[in-house]
Amino acid sequence: MADIELYLVRHGLAGERGTYANDDDRPLTDEGKKKTKQVAKQLHQFGLQFDLMLTSPLVRARQTADILMDVGLAEQLEEFEALGHGGELQTWLEWFDTWKSTGKTLALVGHEPDLTTWTERLVWGKAEEKLILKKAGVIGLLLPTEVSPVANSQLFWLSPPRFLIS
Amino acid sequence: MADIELYLVRHGLAGERGTYANDDDRPLTDEGKKKTKQVAKQLHQFGLQFDLMLTSPLVRARQTADILMDVGLAEQLEEFEALGHGGELQTWLEWFDTWKSTGKTLALVGHEPDLTTWTERLVWGKAEEKLILKKAGVIGLLLPTEVSPVANSQLFWLSPPRFLIS
Repeated sequence: MADIELYLVRHGLAGERGTYANDDDRPLTDEGKKKTKQVAKQLHQFGLQFDLMLTSPLVRARQTADILMDVGLAEQLEEFEALGHGGELQTWLEWFDTWKSTGKTLALVGHEPDLTTWTERLVWGKAEEKLILKKAGVIGLLLPTEVSPVANSQLFWLSPPRFLIS
Repeated sequence: MADIELYLVRHGLAGERGTYANDDDRPLTDEGKKKTKQVAKQLHQFGLQFDLMLTSPLVRARQTADILMDVGLAEQLEEFEALGHGGELQTWLEWFDTWKSTGKTLALVGHEPDLTTWTERLVWGKAEEKLILKKAGVIGLLLPTEVSPVANSQLFWLSPPRFLIS
């Protein structure tokens, strides 16, 4: 079975911490929406197409995922609890193990430091905070399907939005 | 002292192995030149500007470096022997230690698997072949200047040409 392409997208620029009673409700700023739309259009222009997109249920991530859906980047969008609030990679790995036979390209929309922590564990087996993922930035990984993806995946893309929007 | 931005660029598509008596002489193909020019223009459009570019002396790397120079990406270009023929990171580290006080942004043009091996050692301390760097692809690292960059650097960019040329 061929590798799975996994794309991880960090939510765009959001309102400042402390301005909302519940931090989960912080929405994207106007600038955050604008830049996320530019990134979304660029990803679409690169020919990317995801079989499925999973998003953190938090407002700023969900809005980011909706913007990515609006340009037609994925067939389907689902909220995935473990992508919010420092969720466990293990939870996602169990889900992935059942999903991997059904698609080839998958996107996750979430938060830092979770996205780079998950990436480092998938690629090197442990997280050392060596990756810098800006808001509205993107990571691309190749995940094997015959063995556990932990410590067995490869990194082929990591980009801040400034190197996506020309 | 602030971090140094280090960009590593792999040479573009070159003629097939075995078609030249000396493999060092293999030049870029027409398609390799064209794509490398497109990447060079895009890097320039992103506002990148290197204080210095070091290149492997092998023809396909030197041609790649010349194309990057032609669009005005660097002030200065020098050949650096250790970037060709599986050169030692240690040789470059000794050079870097004396150079780092004189500039802020540096680019290296070279070959695989050396560029990802050097990157993995700078970021994680050891090379595990977990990074995929395509021909005419780019890596961006932040190197500390107060301590050894080995196992202390951060990765902020890794891109194949297909995600640079829109």
